[in-house]
Amino acid sequence: MKEDAKILITDLSVQRGYGIFDYFKTINDQPVFLEDHLDRFYFSAAEMFLPVDIEREALKNIFQQLIEKNNLPDSGIRITLTGGYSEDGYAPAKPNLFITQSAFSYNKDNFEKGTRLVTYQHQRQLSQVKTIDYLQAIRLQTFIKENNADDVLYYNASGISECPRANFFIVNERNEIITPEKNMLAGITRKKIMAFAGLNTKEESIQLEQLTTAKEAFITSTSKIILPVLKIDGQTIGNGKPGEITREIFKQMLGSQGN
Amino acid sequence: MKEDAKILITDLSVQRGYGIFDYFKTINDQPVFLEDHLDRFYFSAAEMFLPVDIEREALKNIFQQLIEKNNLPDSGIRITLTGGYSEDGYAPAKPNLFITQSAFSYNKDNFEKGTRLVTYQHQRQLSQVKTIDYLQAIRLQTFIKENNADDVLYYNASGISECPRANFFIVNERNEIITPEKNMLAGITRKKIMAFAGLNTKEESIQLEQLTTAKEAFITSTSKIILPVLKIDGQTIGNGKPGEITREIFKQMLGSQGN
Repeated sequence: MKEDAKILITDLSVQRGYGIFDYFKTINDQPVFLEDHLDRFYFSAAEMFLPVDIEREALKNIFQQLIEKNNLPDSGIRITLTGGYSEDGYAPAKPNLFITQSAFSYNKDNFEKGTRLVTYQHQRQLSQVKTIDYLQAIRLQTFIKENNADDVLYYNASGISECPRANFFIVNERNEIITPEKNMLAGITRKKIMAFAGLNTKEESIQLEQLTTAKEAFITSTSKIILPVLKIDGQTIGNGKPGEITREIFKQMLGSQGN
Repeated sequence: MKEDAKILITDLSVQRGYGIFDYFKTINDQPVFLEDHLDRFYFSAAEMFLPVDIEREALKNIFQQLIEKNNLPDSGIRITLTGGYSEDGYAPAKPNLFITQSAFSYNKDNFEKGTRLVTYQHQRQLSQVKTIDYLQAIRLQTFIKENNADDVLYYNASGISECPRANFFIVNERNEIITPEKNMLAGITRKKIMAFAGLNTKEESIQLEQLTTAKEAFITSTSKIILPVLKIDGQTIGNGKPGEITREIFKQMLGSQGN
């Protein structure tokens, strides 16, 4: 059981917050966008100088065994790689790898409910790497509640970057679908959207001022898929309902992942 | 034994790098600057919204028991407080607290050997809080070695801030002892030095250009006490040996902590 799995406190994740992870879904026992997630997992590990002593195909076999054993057709699988049991609590050691599977099924009602964001000035370090660093995100949960929001949207001097666990998009007056080009994690859902045919998508910086004139806004992630943003900093986006372009992308996305 | 202590992987330190800690020495079974470390520990916990369900005096009793039981007269005691066993891996739970004691005795030869730094542009998030976030510091260990250095010195657009585990000082041409005033952790050793009588100390921003003209430089921490900086980015500081003012402060510091 996931709830029983333990790690020594000498691990560098506990001592120094040092680790990376990735997370993908299974739908009807089928992993969704597995190759993309594995690409990112190995990239993150390499960026943090964490050697992975298991080959890609062997890793996929482990996922398959987990799927067969756990009998959770709709699930989320998280693979975590930490700095390992460090003798002095600082020097990296042989990494520890663990994989957990939890029941997860997407609730389509979420889309209609949408989400409310509150902006906050912060730039995640090593933002292109999926590290376990969510120090600000966890800390800001109080701030989010105080601001009647559901999640936080980070920005810095060069514009908006991302939510802690989701990428951000707006649809502007010219029906262009814009997402920040840098300072954020390259999400798999974001990547899939950018590759859809027939969409007028663009990677471009988004300034805070552009939020007030956006026709639509939405966030994307593996678990949220596409979530319409109905309010930012208390201001209503568009008519306060999920937008038509957002809905179109959502439908296309559901289709592409096998829902 | 410290080496056997375990934590569930659902802890937010493992899942999201969320936790704080503090670290103090004992010399001959006597804790050094304990009140200062406890002040900072409770401050860090409050800043991260981590409730500490143990009173200060009770905590001191636990340290005392540990000291009596472990029989390590010269030691380092680390107290860690993490985000706890989160049900969804994101929402903070009841914090986990653990305390470990390890043998540690200061080696006075370190002072003569000094240390070499390499500069790197980075600003630690929540730098005034002693969080477990050492993501950059651990990652940069390769970079440090490649640059024939022993540690990294962070700087940002507004100047130099700190080393990952030490505060930074220079002695300038006017024999002023200067340490950065912001963007860094307020170290206990730093605080003690600033309170010494008869020293011409100043909290002031230090720019990269000032390093080349510094007569002396040193770093301070609980375990390093005072360590002369002999090189920065390959450039020799002063005459490349521990400076006289640095040595004076070192002596005074050794005296004040009961060495």
